[in-house]
Amino acid sequence: MIDEISMKVRADELIRMALAEDVTNEDVSTCCVLEGYSYGEADLLCKQDGVIAGLPVFARVFALLGEGTHTQFFVKDGDAVKKGQLLARVSGDMRVILTGERTALNFLQRMSGIATYTAAMVKLLSGSGLRLVDTRKTTPNMRLFEKYAVRAGGGGNHRYNLSDAVLLKDNHIGAAGGVKEAVAAARAYVPFTMKIEVEAEDLQMVKDAVEAGADIIMLDNMTDEEMRAAVGYIAGRALVEISGNVTAENVSRLKDIGADVVSCGALTHSAPILDVSLKNLHPVGTGGQPR
Amino acid sequence: MIDEISMKVRADELIRMALAEDVTNEDVSTCCVLEGYSYGEADLLCKQDGVIAGLPVFARVFALLGEGTHTQFFVKDGDAVKKGQLLARVSGDMRVILTGERTALNFLQRMSGIATYTAAMVKLLSGSGLRLVDTRKTTPNMRLFEKYAVRAGGGGNHRYNLSDAVLLKDNHIGAAGGVKEAVAAARAYVPFTMKIEVEAEDLQMVKDAVEAGADIIMLDNMTDEEMRAAVGYIAGRALVEISGNVTAENVSRLKDIGADVVSCGALTHSAPILDVSLKNLHPVGTGGQPR
Amino acid sequence: MIDEISMKVRADELIRMALAEDVTNEDVSTCCVLEGYSYGEADLLCKQDGVIAGLPVFARVFALLGEGTHTQFFVKDGDAVKKGQLLARVSGDMRVILTGERTALNFLQRMSGIATYTAAMVKLLSGSGLRLVDTRKTTPNMRLFEKYAVRAGGGGNHRYNLSDAVLLKDNHIGAAGGVKEAVAAARAYVPFTMKIEVEAEDLQMVKDAVEAGADIIMLDNMTDEEMRAAVGYIAGRALVEISGNVTAENVSRLKDIGADVVSCGALTHSAPILDVSLKNLHPVGTGGQPR
Amino acid sequence: MIDEISMKVRADELIRMALAEDVTNEDVSTCCVLEGYSYGEADLLCKQDGVIAGLPVFARVFALLGEGTHTQFFVKDGDAVKKGQLLARVSGDMRVILTGERTALNFLQRMSGIATYTAAMVKLLSGSGLRLVDTRKTTPNMRLFEKYAVRAGGGGNHRYNLSDAVLLKDNHIGAAGGVKEAVAAARAYVPFTMKIEVEAEDLQMVKDAVEAGADIIMLDNMTDEEMRAAVGYIAGRALVEISGNVTAENVSRLKDIGADVVSCGALTHSAPILDVSLKNLHPVGTGGQPR
Amino acid sequence: MIDEISMKVRADELIRMALAEDVTNEDVSTCCVLEGYSYGEADLLCKQDGVIAGLPVFARVFALLGEGTHTQFFVKDGDAVKKGQLLARVSGDMRVILTGERTALNFLQRMSGIATYTAAMVKLLSGSGLRLVDTRKTTPNMRLFEKYAVRAGGGGNHRYNLSDAVLLKDNHIGAAGGVKEAVAAARAYVPFTMKIEVEAEDLQMVKDAVEAGADIIMLDNMTDEEMRAAVGYIAGRALVEISGNVTAENVSRLKDIGADVVSCGALTHSAPILDVSLKNLHPVGTGGQPR
Amino acid sequence: MIDEISMKVRADELIRMALAEDVTNEDVSTCCVLEGYSYGEADLLCKQDGVIAGLPVFARVFALLGEGTHTQFFVKDGDAVKKGQLLARVSGDMRVILTGERTALNFLQRMSGIATYTAAMVKLLSGSGLRLVDTRKTTPNMRLFEKYAVRAGGGGNHRYNLSDAVLLKDNHIGAAGGVKEAVAAARAYVPFTMKIEVEAEDLQMVKDAVEAGADIIMLDNMTDEEMRAAVGYIAGRALVEISGNVTAENVSRLKDIGADVVSCGALTHSAPILDVSLKNLHPVGTGGQPR
Repeated sequence: MIDEISMKVRADELIRMALAEDVTNEDVSTCCVLEGYSYGEADLLCKQDGVIAGLPVFARVFALLGEGTHTQFFVKDGDAVKKGQLLARVSGDMRVILTGERTALNFLQRMSGIATYTAAMVKLLSGSGLRLVDTRKTTPNMRLFEKYAVRAGGGGNHRYNLSDAVLLKDNHIGAAGGVKEAVAAARAYVPFTMKIEVEAEDLQMVKDAVEAGADIIMLDNMTDEEMRAAVGYIAGRALVEISGNVTAENVSRLKDIGADVVSCGALTHSAPILDVSLKNLHPVGTGGQPR
Repeated sequence: MIDEISMKVRADELIRMALAEDVTNEDVSTCCVLEGYSYGEADLLCKQDGVIAGLPVFARVFALLGEGTHTQFFVKDGDAVKKGQLLARVSGDMRVILTGERTALNFLQRMSGIATYTAAMVKLLSGSGLRLVDTRKTTPNMRLFEKYAVRAGGGGNHRYNLSDAVLLKDNHIGAAGGVKEAVAAARAYVPFTMKIEVEAEDLQMVKDAVEAGADIIMLDNMTDEEMRAAVGYIAGRALVEISGNVTAENVSRLKDIGADVVSCGALTHSAPILDVSLKNLHPVGTGGQPR
Repeated sequence: MIDEISMKVRADELIRMALAEDVTNEDVSTCCVLEGYSYGEADLLCKQDGVIAGLPVFARVFALLGEGTHTQFFVKDGDAVKKGQLLARVSGDMRVILTGERTALNFLQRMSGIATYTAAMVKLLSGSGLRLVDTRKTTPNMRLFEKYAVRAGGGGNHRYNLSDAVLLKDNHIGAAGGVKEAVAAARAYVPFTMKIEVEAEDLQMVKDAVEAGADIIMLDNMTDEEMRAAVGYIAGRALVEISGNVTAENVSRLKDIGADVVSCGALTHSAPILDVSLKNLHPVGTGGQPR
Repeated sequence: MIDEISMKVRADELIRMALAEDVTNEDVSTCCVLEGYSYGEADLLCKQDGVIAGLPVFARVFALLGEGTHTQFFVKDGDAVKKGQLLARVSGDMRVILTGERTALNFLQRMSGIATYTAAMVKLLSGSGLRLVDTRKTTPNMRLFEKYAVRAGGGGNHRYNLSDAVLLKDNHIGAAGGVKEAVAAARAYVPFTMKIEVEAEDLQMVKDAVEAGADIIMLDNMTDEEMRAAVGYIAGRALVEISGNVTAENVSRLKDIGADVVSCGALTHSAPILDVSLKNLHPVGTGGQPR
Repeated sequence: MIDEISMKVRADELIRMALAEDVTNEDVSTCCVLEGYSYGEADLLCKQDGVIAGLPVFARVFALLGEGTHTQFFVKDGDAVKKGQLLARVSGDMRVILTGERTALNFLQRMSGIATYTAAMVKLLSGSGLRLVDTRKTTPNMRLFEKYAVRAGGGGNHRYNLSDAVLLKDNHIGAAGGVKEAVAAARAYVPFTMKIEVEAEDLQMVKDAVEAGADIIMLDNMTDEEMRAAVGYIAGRALVEISGNVTAENVSRLKDIGADVVSCGALTHSAPILDVSLKNLHPVGTGGQPR
Repeated sequence: MIDEISMKVRADELIRMALAEDVTNEDVSTCCVLEGYSYGEADLLCKQDGVIAGLPVFARVFALLGEGTHTQFFVKDGDAVKKGQLLARVSGDMRVILTGERTALNFLQRMSGIATYTAAMVKLLSGSGLRLVDTRKTTPNMRLFEKYAVRAGGGGNHRYNLSDAVLLKDNHIGAAGGVKEAVAAARAYVPFTMKIEVEAEDLQMVKDAVEAGADIIMLDNMTDEEMRAAVGYIAGRALVEISGNVTAENVSRLKDIGADVVSCGALTHSAPILDVSLKNLHPVGTGGQPR
């Protein structure tokens, strides 16, 4: 999860880049009216019902801009939140709050939008053993945050990237000369710690994949009938993934196919944001310049 | 626009980071079946009607992975495209095409989704003098690409970031002690080449902003009636921007308010992707190892 | 201005690079005589009359090298300073002070040189309404600091870079087919928040620029007579900038032309440094190793 | 020297950063009038007599922006140039030439200013055996270019940075307990490939330094008389450097002191630029889009 | 493998950093004798018997320094090589060859040392089904190259890093409250594409791991007897890894334990280099300056 | 040495990269069992006799991952350590300790291996005036740490890289036209603060080097007899370095040649690691979440 440790290793650089994207040299609007340190507070309010995700990232944006900034949370990632609910309170240098506001909200809104969309789809699958997972169809340079948001919404993750699991698609299989050859090539090449998944387009490929010893078989754009036949054939010898234009509208029908996971690109590529807002910024006390 | 020159200066770094996000060390699925150079081609197909945007970025992903890769375009950014239409053909090292595919599509799909959504909203405003523009509510580290996509869809851009124009909001105005004081502070502080915009919440603020000599006045979440009164008062002495939860559903009613621009965060934060796909990758000829 | 917030976003990276430029692996002279932490103080002394600029950058160099370093200021940026005056006292690990000294002074001397030169030219224009501004003729990778120094010296800034305002020169006008066509192309292309400036070489171009609705007109290398005619024609319909080999020697004659700003590249490209020096470094007390 | 090899290792990054400093997202003035590739040429003209330095950097700016750009040189670094002289011709994509112009000139003007100032001072020393060298008083992140420019102007370099030679100043000597102790500590600590220099403030320190076996002795702010005594005492047992507020006005008197080198901070911190200009940009032929 | 594609994504940055580590500003020895381009060739000779690995990295060092450099290979990675054998010929700008030589050899020698050591240990296991794999005990910032070298030597890879497979050690198990709880926590948390390995210190832990459904069980520092018992109990229900101070001296006795893989940190942390050398650099023909 | 100051300038970036090499997105094994902050301690134990080096780097890895982590040392770099000895205790967030463990140990083990190997060779030379030094045959991107480790083991350093001293080898000499010409070219080109070394293959070259005024002469792969003759000829007019396949086995015979230094690539390219281990990690007290 995005905790203090991952932040140091990976998220900080992306947050710093996002701040630099928004500030070429200075925040002219803030600098012209606030000459020095001035202590203040602002409220993070929810403006739509949904599931919140990204609060540590939101807080980190301000902390990276000004070390003395503090964010107090009233909810935690994965919580259902309501329109009008107070989510957090940011306190510190008002210049930091004003300059970091948009970047902090851009992260939080997008991540919460994904968590909200994911939670809605997970609900549609409740009661079935089918697990909803994401894909690599993420926004460039946002994968760390978007895959985290899927988990915050109750979904699971597929492989993180091209390096941590094998997924043999038609072109790989074609290049190898067949499913068995491709699986054998992968087995010989990759770390023994890595699973091998085969994308199957028909029942024959499913059979080949089982025989080749694939760890996971993806049923790609199959009819319900084909999928049932495939699941019956596989019979627990491999994990079964369903894939192909899955949306909130059509996911329910997959509940009783008997597959293990269903993957859905829309979780990360088409979820609208959740509207949250920073309100009521005001100076507090004398504020005293920090050391 | 994102041409060869901007790419060198800004986009290349972001594209390289996106590739590194997807490849920790190697693309295991491709490396296990394709040992060396093998020349091939693939088709970029449209799977939904919409407006395309991001073709130079799509091509650049492959070019940065392998210099010998070439992308031939059959459409150009901003063109309306149809489901099933052939958009481009990528040719080069098949390993490059396989490894770069997802990253290239992630850029193209998101940018085209924004262009498509923008074009739809622009159409709703056609015939009026009202110009649709974006906001700073962009995905972190994607602003370069997302603001480009808005233009490709026929929209315009608001300021790029906190450094290139002044936008005085309630907190800035409060800190300065009033609209006039804030505008005066900005005028004294910022380059004379920079415009100053004031966010007005009621007619009194509009009047103060006009008197203060603001270049642009934003009517923030006003009723239609208030907006008409504001426009009448301003009477061309400043550009007028309408802002506040504008969507495809409600934008039409703003056509005859008399404002100059309407800004809409949804263009960049909530547009679903346009589905495009790389298909039919196949080896071509003997391919011959490039020098 | 370069405060804590801008430092985090932009200046820190440049300061770190400057330190790395001066230290390939270690400061051999310091390391061979000072094996561990040793607390000391040093005085920042002025060795020439002038205007100081860059104190926060000076302090930041030491803070980035060693968190426990503290700089106490006795003056602030923009202050007139005298030869022999004590400007600040740096205290902390003596190794940090010795290793950071040259880099800290290199920033401070150059920025103060620019502020001093600017202040002298501003004085020559006092009493007139003419404002002195800088140009993009800055030292590569020093623009953030140099444009700040111009303001500290009482000058103003022209656009920060190629992205935040339009300046149409002869080649742009030629490519567009004329002044009117170029201004129209810019108006259609750039954000509505951006001003458009036209560089005019004669009165006809001034007239075209006014008609085209340019926000700013630059009178480039015109005679005094031509400039007066241009200002008379423009009559407040656009801001007027004078440009062309302006120096301390010739700036006074421009005072009563009636223009709004005069730009001067020499502010940043040819100001000699202001000599300041770190003196009297000495160990203080037992110093005690910091945690 | 800054040839193709050093460029790849070090200069390219600094040039790319300088370009990014000038382009946040795009060159709006150029993009609005030039939509695509258009081949053109421009002339680099000298506007002042002086010594040119930085031509490979000038050319590299354009090459990094657009690979097809070519610069033809009519002079080479270190050449004396005259007002009005044609120095080079740049050809390529006109957008590249317009966008890169200022950055390329900012490098070239500053480097040539240093070379010109250096050459003038070297001339004042001609006939003597005294060599003029620079210091570490360079502009932050410009040392690579500025020290190169000193050589182009006929000067020599002092150590590059804190890591490649030992220079023991008063504070180092104080910390070690004396000149002999400091030299001994350095000899024990640093690579045997490294020279050790001692900054001496009086004759006693000179004697101590000679006895300690210093390789170089710097006579810091001594009177002519003291310097002659020091040179006499040293008698070739160490190289002798003169230092301390050396300028064009006072350098001549040092010619017959008998020292080996004289160092001068003004070479890099206070030389005004040499004025050069890119003129006469014009489209050439049909230009043909490059592949 | 380290081919053109991975190079662009990951290796290039590390190679560039290694070159910058060796060149602060310029290669003084080369620059003082070779003023301009001069075409030459050099031979890469083997000075010890062994297995070669890293040839593409060797060539890439020169290519990144000078685009016109070409390396012709007479062997390929993984080949056994003999003392005195000609491995490759580098041709291009002699300055590039001289400046890049040490960095190129430092990569090649270390990688070949690992491949040679690995090949020797693999030979000791030949005839058994036991596969030799590496660990994460690699040199910091060299993992990409070192794990590649292990494969070139005939070994296999364990997980690449902390993100691509689960390995539950005593502390993880302790924190979770037991083997079963830890495996269950992992199964719930990580992508379904990821394998889960448990480090077992005794037979009870092995039994718990099997019951918990671990994919891989590591027998950590067990006696041969314990290992045999463990393998017998596991009976194919999980992959079995042997770990713990495995060296060339003691690996043979593990051949008939019945495990699947044996991991060995020494492959990457203690292999001596293979001595290779660049010899016989000489100018060739007139060379002609490249464009 | 690698103290707080050098860490800020140079080592931190390399440590951060090493952490990122080991963590693509998160440490899955730790994250699945430890959800939040949990305070603990672990012991750094020595598992082999040797010389320790790299303790500040070891501690810095944890500090960069989590600011609240503290390392208490019981030995210091350069100390001889014994198998079983407690070297240090790390305390802080247990997630930080688990995630940073391998990277911290990879630095420490390698650096201590080099220090141990160096100390053994230094011992073989004790009693002679001959100093053992390293070479540039270091692991790419590890030179800072490896050259430090050589010093911790009692050895000295040769030049750091290609930029801080001149070493004229056969190819440089050939290009210049002879030893004298090469030395003269170097003298004219490089800073006067820099020493010039000549690699001599026979006595004639030694004589030429002495006459040319070389500061250091390297006797490259000469017989003992040749070396004695060379030393006799040089007679203190230059420092004398012995080079060529020096190892622990053959170094002793060089003790009475009369040379000043002997360089040995094996110190950094072939030293096996020193085995150290982090043991006994356990939670301590209630731990309390840090601020």
